[in-house]
Amino acid sequence: MNMVDIIDQKKRGMALNEAQIRLFVQGAAEGTVPDYQLAALLMAIRLQGMNREETVQLTMAMAHSGDICDLSGIQGIPTDKHSTGGVGDTTTLVLAPLVAACGVPVAKMSGRGLGHTGGTLDKLESIPGFRVDLSEEAFLAQVRKLGVAIIGQTKNLAPADKALYALRDVTATVDSLPLIASSIMSKKLASGARAIVLDVKTGAGALMHTLEDSIELARAMVRIGQDAGRRVVALVTDMGEPLGSHVGNALEVKEAIDVLSGRTGGPLKRVALALGAQMLVLGGAAKDEAEALGRLEEALQSGAGLERLRRLIIAQGGDPACVDDTACLPQARVVRDVPAPAQGYVLRMDTVGLGMTAQAMGAGRRVKTDVIDPSVGFVLHKRIGDPVRRGEPLATVHARDPESAQTAAQAIARLVEISPQQTPPCKLVHAFVDGERTEMR
Amino acid sequence: MNMVDIIDQKKRGMALNEAQIRLFVQGAAEGTVPDYQLAALLMAIRLQGMNREETVQLTMAMAHSGDICDLSGIQGIPTDKHSTGGVGDTTTLVLAPLVAACGVPVAKMSGRGLGHTGGTLDKLESIPGFRVDLSEEAFLAQVRKLGVAIIGQTKNLAPADKALYALRDVTATVDSLPLIASSIMSKKLASGARAIVLDVKTGAGALMHTLEDSIELARAMVRIGQDAGRRVVALVTDMGEPLGSHVGNALEVKEAIDVLSGRTGGPLKRVALALGAQMLVLGGAAKDEAEALGRLEEALQSGAGLERLRRLIIAQGGDPACVDDTACLPQARVVRDVPAPAQGYVLRMDTVGLGMTAQAMGAGRRVKTDVIDPSVGFVLHKRIGDPVRRGEPLATVHARDPESAQTAAQAIARLVEISPQQTPPCKLVHAFVDGERTEMR
Repeated sequence: MNMVDIIDQKKRGMALNEAQIRLFVQGAAEGTVPDYQLAALLMAIRLQGMNREETVQLTMAMAHSGDICDLSGIQGIPTDKHSTGGVGDTTTLVLAPLVAACGVPVAKMSGRGLGHTGGTLDKLESIPGFRVDLSEEAFLAQVRKLGVAIIGQTKNLAPADKALYALRDVTATVDSLPLIASSIMSKKLASGARAIVLDVKTGAGALMHTLEDSIELARAMVRIGQDAGRRVVALVTDMGEPLGSHVGNALEVKEAIDVLSGRTGGPLKRVALALGAQMLVLGGAAKDEAEALGRLEEALQSGAGLERLRRLIIAQGGDPACVDDTACLPQARVVRDVPAPAQGYVLRMDTVGLGMTAQAMGAGRRVKTDVIDPSVGFVLHKRIGDPVRRGEPLATVHARDPESAQTAAQAIARLVEISPQQTPPCKLVHAFVDGERTEMR
Repeated sequence: MNMVDIIDQKKRGMALNEAQIRLFVQGAAEGTVPDYQLAALLMAIRLQGMNREETVQLTMAMAHSGDICDLSGIQGIPTDKHSTGGVGDTTTLVLAPLVAACGVPVAKMSGRGLGHTGGTLDKLESIPGFRVDLSEEAFLAQVRKLGVAIIGQTKNLAPADKALYALRDVTATVDSLPLIASSIMSKKLASGARAIVLDVKTGAGALMHTLEDSIELARAMVRIGQDAGRRVVALVTDMGEPLGSHVGNALEVKEAIDVLSGRTGGPLKRVALALGAQMLVLGGAAKDEAEALGRLEEALQSGAGLERLRRLIIAQGGDPACVDDTACLPQARVVRDVPAPAQGYVLRMDTVGLGMTAQAMGAGRRVKTDVIDPSVGFVLHKRIGDPVRRGEPLATVHARDPESAQTAAQAIARLVEISPQQTPPCKLVHAFVDGERTEMR
């Protein structure tokens, strides 16, 4: 058995066996299989596909290519949540403390912003002093004590996935369902959670643009997780427009605190609670969604969620002052409104464009070495379907200087499309996937 | 325009334009595009194909990635012949002097043995002193003076093809019709011939195993050549068994001399004359096949062909004694017969196995640095369909030592299948392809 035979077999549309999959995954992790052979195989997989068994074996092989986080010492069912990435999508900051407050342990390894999407680690780091680089021991100790910890992925988490992803990025093989599903799930399995709630975004601002493709990805990931012996369900949620009204790191932390304080409702709260409810059910803290939603609302009303966030911030070295006064978060020097250029209704938004606008302002990285400005971003005052009067504030930009504010304001005015035609607001949760069952919502 | 976009476009099954094809071909020749991107693109081409226009542009770009041999100083229409590779396939040694003797200039760049197939250069080098590494000036001068010269490919002939072929070999992307056709034709176009006769082998010992695939390859190559403004036709000829009875370098030179001397007829002569006739027609020395065959037979009878071979050998530094006495060619130390293990008829032969047997005896290279033994090989005394008596010589092996003779004899007895069932002999020429016209023979 050698690499040429493995590539040849996949090229002919035949399934690979476990030994063959392990061979190339290990070769990718250790650098013993040349990139050109991996690239040819990835293209063959992209064009010929992988069946369910192959996809699970690929995921397991990538998960086991590095360290597996051992959460067995944690009481209860450690439960994770993963989003495929969006704009203004800060559900983790709302639901992690809230779910922990309801008794389900949350040991979460998060990522950084990528392209037009934000990252939980970048957002948390806008809280002065907050550290995401705990050792594994400190991480586990904190989950045991506090019920929640959020850190970056350890260096040796699924190194095969790292190598293969870097190659996919430069060989036009990112858009493969089995490769996307196995890449995400390998990291989730390696990070040790026993239950996982997947938030698969759908729409123009998401990885998968159509509802059909999003459901297919959700089903593929749920299958992998269940075949690997984990409790997994998925919600397919909307990314036709930013989820929260705030886009930018400190701004998103502010919105999460506003939700946990009960000052703000809206789509961010509703999606965070929908995901959190699934976590409570999978984590064994509620018998069904209705009960779970009730418990989450209770934890919100009582302030238990906000209190858990305060303790999470303190535990990870951050200054908790922002929990009581969000003005303690980094503030941008230039804040100005973006007046609506026309009268009518918000017809649609270029969500990718909005994410890239925040990135260009300094909220994200164009290249890995860019330093993020935590204070910048913008707040949208309108959602799809909302009526707009010409001249009223469409958004408020928070920029590091007047030029950047001007550029961002012009971009936002262009990216939010106003039309005389009335449009219904976007649905927030489109579907629920559990095993072979898909429920449209 | 960058490589990822080019790969992505081909992955989606769309045609590439000329600029895109040039970009990756140039990148391959200059080493400026990483191998992993070329590998992904090659797999996308293997699975999504290339249309006629793309294939021609790919061929032209590869041909122009290095030097183009300028044959414009040669009188008449320089005509080449190319075989896709076979066993006992030494038509070049017969037809090159014969066609030149009929007035059509033959400026031929040949290759070396590869895998189970032999190579013209290796065969010529079994003639003591024969040199295949003439400078381009000496090569052209000899064609002008003598009407024929046979040398190795110059170092800078289609370097993009060299780079891409090396990559295809290790990424399971050899078996792609547009890639095979463009690889062969790029070298033919770069070597400057104005007319080209293609000999596409078909059967178990050939690149393409089925007649259908062989005809498709022939049509693809003819199209490329004609689109590039050359006169090109193809014959699809049989490789279900070795073409000549002699397999091995000096042995094949002997058989060619036997044919040119009129001592031997048989399949090698018939296929060489069929190909040579097409060369005379394309080269303008005969109005049709019948007239061409007559002229070739005449050159054979008169000894003009053999005389031209003698002058070719002298011109390229070889000892012409072998032309009059083939015993002057290198002789193997051990010569022994292989008795037929059974009575019946030859049902089929494992032609690849026979080629590999000759290679293992020392007639070919397993790795690039192996040194060839010109004397070794074998002579088959039976063809498919021939009756065989048990114990009569099936073949005669020419080996460097008794062990090698024994191993080869056992292999041949196993690779030539004898059955009680009577079988018709193989057809030699299956089809003729000229532009869009395919004529079954």
